[in-house]
Amino acid sequence: MASLGTKFEYVKNFERDDRCLPNSWIIVRVDGKSFGKFTEQHGFEKPNDKLGFDLMTRAAVNVMEELRDICLAYGHTDEYSFVFRKDTSCFNRRSAKIMSTVNSIFSSAYVYYWKDIFGVTQLKYPPGFESVIVVYPSEMNLKDYLCWRQSDLQMKNTYNTIFWALVKKGSRTEQEAHEILRNAGQKTEMLFREFGMNYYNEPELYRKGTTLIRKLIPSPADGKLRQFILSQYCDLTGDEFWKENPEILGLKSLQVYHRTIHTNIYMVNKPNTAVDKMEDSNMRMETNQ
Amino acid sequence: MASLGTKFEYVKNFERDDRCLPNSWIIVRVDGKSFGKFTEQHGFEKPNDKLGFDLMTRAAVNVMEELRDICLAYGHTDEYSFVFRKDTSCFNRRSAKIMSTVNSIFSSAYVYYWKDIFGVTQLKYPPGFESVIVVYPSEMNLKDYLCWRQSDLQMKNTYNTIFWALVKKGSRTEQEAHEILRNAGQKTEMLFREFGMNYYNEPELYRKGTTLIRKLIPSPADGKLRQFILSQYCDLTGDEFWKENPEILGLKSLQVYHRTIHTNIYMVNKPNTAVDKMEDSNMRMETNQ
Amino acid sequence: MASLGTKFEYVKNFERDDRCLPNSWIIVRVDGKSFGKFTEQHGFEKPNDKLGFDLMTRAAVNVMEELRDICLAYGHTDEYSFVFRKDTSCFNRRSAKIMSTVNSIFSSAYVYYWKDIFGVTQLKYPPGFESVIVVYPSEMNLKDYLCWRQSDLQMKNTYNTIFWALVKKGSRTEQEAHEILRNAGQKTEMLFREFGMNYYNEPELYRKGTTLIRKLIPSPADGKLRQFILSQYCDLTGDEFWKENPEILGLKSLQVYHRTIHTNIYMVNKPNTAVDKMEDSNMRMETNQ
Amino acid sequence: MASLGTKFEYVKNFERDDRCLPNSWIIVRVDGKSFGKFTEQHGFEKPNDKLGFDLMTRAAVNVMEELRDICLAYGHTDEYSFVFRKDTSCFNRRSAKIMSTVNSIFSSAYVYYWKDIFGVTQLKYPPGFESVIVVYPSEMNLKDYLCWRQSDLQMKNTYNTIFWALVKKGSRTEQEAHEILRNAGQKTEMLFREFGMNYYNEPELYRKGTTLIRKLIPSPADGKLRQFILSQYCDLTGDEFWKENPEILGLKSLQVYHRTIHTNIYMVNKPNTAVDKMEDSNMRMETNQ
Repeated sequence: MASLGTKFEYVKNFERDDRCLPNSWIIVRVDGKSFGKFTEQHGFEKPNDKLGFDLMTRAAVNVMEELRDICLAYGHTDEYSFVFRKDTSCFNRRSAKIMSTVNSIFSSAYVYYWKDIFGVTQLKYPPGFESVIVVYPSEMNLKDYLCWRQSDLQMKNTYNTIFWALVKKGSRTEQEAHEILRNAGQKTEMLFREFGMNYYNEPELYRKGTTLIRKLIPSPADGKLRQFILSQYCDLTGDEFWKENPEILGLKSLQVYHRTIHTNIYMVNKPNTAVDKMEDSNMRMETNQ
Repeated sequence: MASLGTKFEYVKNFERDDRCLPNSWIIVRVDGKSFGKFTEQHGFEKPNDKLGFDLMTRAAVNVMEELRDICLAYGHTDEYSFVFRKDTSCFNRRSAKIMSTVNSIFSSAYVYYWKDIFGVTQLKYPPGFESVIVVYPSEMNLKDYLCWRQSDLQMKNTYNTIFWALVKKGSRTEQEAHEILRNAGQKTEMLFREFGMNYYNEPELYRKGTTLIRKLIPSPADGKLRQFILSQYCDLTGDEFWKENPEILGLKSLQVYHRTIHTNIYMVNKPNTAVDKMEDSNMRMETNQ
Repeated sequence: MASLGTKFEYVKNFERDDRCLPNSWIIVRVDGKSFGKFTEQHGFEKPNDKLGFDLMTRAAVNVMEELRDICLAYGHTDEYSFVFRKDTSCFNRRSAKIMSTVNSIFSSAYVYYWKDIFGVTQLKYPPGFESVIVVYPSEMNLKDYLCWRQSDLQMKNTYNTIFWALVKKGSRTEQEAHEILRNAGQKTEMLFREFGMNYYNEPELYRKGTTLIRKLIPSPADGKLRQFILSQYCDLTGDEFWKENPEILGLKSLQVYHRTIHTNIYMVNKPNTAVDKMEDSNMRMETNQ
Repeated sequence: MASLGTKFEYVKNFERDDRCLPNSWIIVRVDGKSFGKFTEQHGFEKPNDKLGFDLMTRAAVNVMEELRDICLAYGHTDEYSFVFRKDTSCFNRRSAKIMSTVNSIFSSAYVYYWKDIFGVTQLKYPPGFESVIVVYPSEMNLKDYLCWRQSDLQMKNTYNTIFWALVKKGSRTEQEAHEILRNAGQKTEMLFREFGMNYYNEPELYRKGTTLIRKLIPSPADGKLRQFILSQYCDLTGDEFWKENPEILGLKSLQVYHRTIHTNIYMVNKPNTAVDKMEDSNMRMETNQ
């Protein structure tokens, strides 16, 4: 039998060496497949469903718990991007292994945590997610990638917010709403004029998406500094985020969390065990570098 | 905002064109990550757990339901290989899309169907699967790939069968069992001599793994020919399988199923709906080409 | 110093593994860069320059002498394609090595043999050639590639033949000739009607391009069978060529040359030494294979 | 005919998109094939042949004349590395086109200029060069690449210098010389002790290799600033070189040459015409940038 296996083993040589360029940022982006249909069949709220986002983020936290070289994740709607440190040697930087591991954990966690978040609403079928892996050589390219995803959200979300206002409050058909918007200029202005809604009062979660980073935080249990994953709604297009979290680009060790912004905190325990979520308390801590 | 998005869109150019070579068989293999630990934590039976395999196959059937250009799948232990027709234009043959879609549906289906198969036994955490995608230019290479996976199973399964016989029936420690086997010659002989077990009487599922193919079968409901997915335990190292199912390599239209072998049949409904499983009845049908 | 070198050696890891898919035909095509300008500056005859083609073929023969796994080469105008046996392990099938070696020997041989062929006409500057490497999984794809190049020649050559007839015999300007041809239908008919030229009487070299293959031929010196490279003008779009030379696709050992067609024969000596060219004599030999 | 071509054109789809990652330095390294044999057959002096290096550099200058986005080239022994600006869009960054063009021009220029440099010594056969293309994401990686090649030279050159001293002055056989050196420690010390040769008095060309960069220099003809290619023997392992030539990493416009070091200057005329070489005069110029 051994000799039979050996005879066929040559087929292994058809695998490609697909290692990512060294010294470069690796990003895996996971996107929901046919999520228009999926969200409809599961009665997601329009334009944004809070529980749906919570589940996406819960799945993303799971990915970060398993893959320690992911230094940042950013997601909104039906997508999540995972940024690996540029010096990662995770899976020897092999594209297929990195991408499929992220993709797989995200998918199975999405189904696994469904009932925690949606309760009695049944999941009707296993959803699919497709992924892409991209390599960025410079910090600027990395930042611009995140800006690209965030500006994509802003464009879509302003559109969707006014679209669903037209349908739900303005009693237009979806067809009519699309036609009105085809020629519309300033959508945020229109939102205010027609429905008295100030777009900038819409929840940050919907306008900015969710950014996950790692920090050291005193554990509620014993006060000792432990690694947590923070979820924030922040602006990635300016400098502020990068100034506040210099350890990400600097490839430095984790920092102690010391500012009070709207944040959810996921405690990173050992992989494969439950994660506690601490609600945003008014904590203020010092950096210990 | 649109202009802001446009400013950052250049980052899209960093994506690679990863299309698979045309006119070649594409195989995606999905492998359980840390499944040694996973099976232990979930109390899987050793050396083989029937329910565990049923779940793997259930997930694989789901993948085949969604991706119609998969003409064959073969799996055992914690792995499943999916073979795409060599003329597939699925996702424009883009590697990352093909691989991540297979990987994702498999992963989410594995979690989704867990309770259908394991009942009250809880899934403790979302499992991960890693994937690889390989391209084979010729029929011979494709067949040899499948032989390689099947001979790999045979090697592992003879080892595991005698190993667990030594531990469970022979009251050896796992350490002792490994040492005995290190120097053992014919493992199937030893199994018979020491424990009176004829390896070739072990269940075919464990010895041969599961092969999934598509056939037309009269629907139990109305007698009309419908596409089904058949799961068989067959020998992929000889010619017989390929002679019986010439439509796979021949890229022909589906054939009517006409032989009676031990087979499970999954009805392919529209994607995303439940699948009925017909137990192997003594059906005999004619080919209609 | 050794330690200094070691410190920097990590940069080697940035090289990609670029091996071609196994069990597939590898083709390298070399194309002249800016050869419109080059042929003009060197006074090449229009539409076809016999010496120019001779030099291209001389350079291609040199490539075949050095790289024994090239089983066929086909060229015309300013391009030459080199086909490697599908089982070649030349340079471990690494793309960059295969492509650059073909490209480099072709380029340096083109300059080296210039004076042998053009005599006193000086080469004014070193010409450039750019290359592409492509992998074909099947015989049909390989044949179709060659048909593609040959039909490309036919299209260009019919155009150029009538174009230069209009300019040289018809006293049109180049501008006028292009305009006439823009709307012209059957170019070969027009050639006959206007200039009494039967396109199919034009030299085969210009109409069919040059095909180089390897054969065993009794050496003029001692009558012993030796490996030669034959240059022929043959039709690659039908079956005849492949029937006459079954060893190419069959990956068989070299055949004895046994037909009399218009052929030039290059004796393959040890690499890096001069090649004798035997003019097409009426030789007739038996197959010995 | 057109339709025939169209029928076969599908084979073009087998070509891979091989564009280099954007925003990264691209390096093509050209290496002589079997140059041990080549230099022996052409009677090159050992351990270093001045004319041989002059020809390598002449060929490299030709490559830089044709490809304006090469900002630096570095070579020694039988190799030359060409660095493309990290923002180059040359050939749309397609690997095969970039690599083959560099490789081809280098090869054909090497043969073309042979007689200018070697005079009556005949070139016996067309030499081959193989190439590799590598992408570096950061300035540090780029600098380290050059340091790697330069430290490689130093290691080889100290070895070769003492080796040939042992053979030529010490009357050892080559076999004996290798054995002596196998166990030798400090080779530069040994060179001094045994032969009174101070390694650091050996010509810089042999110890440091040749660096080619572009500068603006007042033309000898009319005093106007024109682009020239400078060849220098400089240390690439320290900071000095990069401080003196900040325009290379800074992607700035060309600088006026203003220091007096041992330098050859090649005037860059229009491509494809002869290049004048100005001997190192004691020119001193001001920066204008």
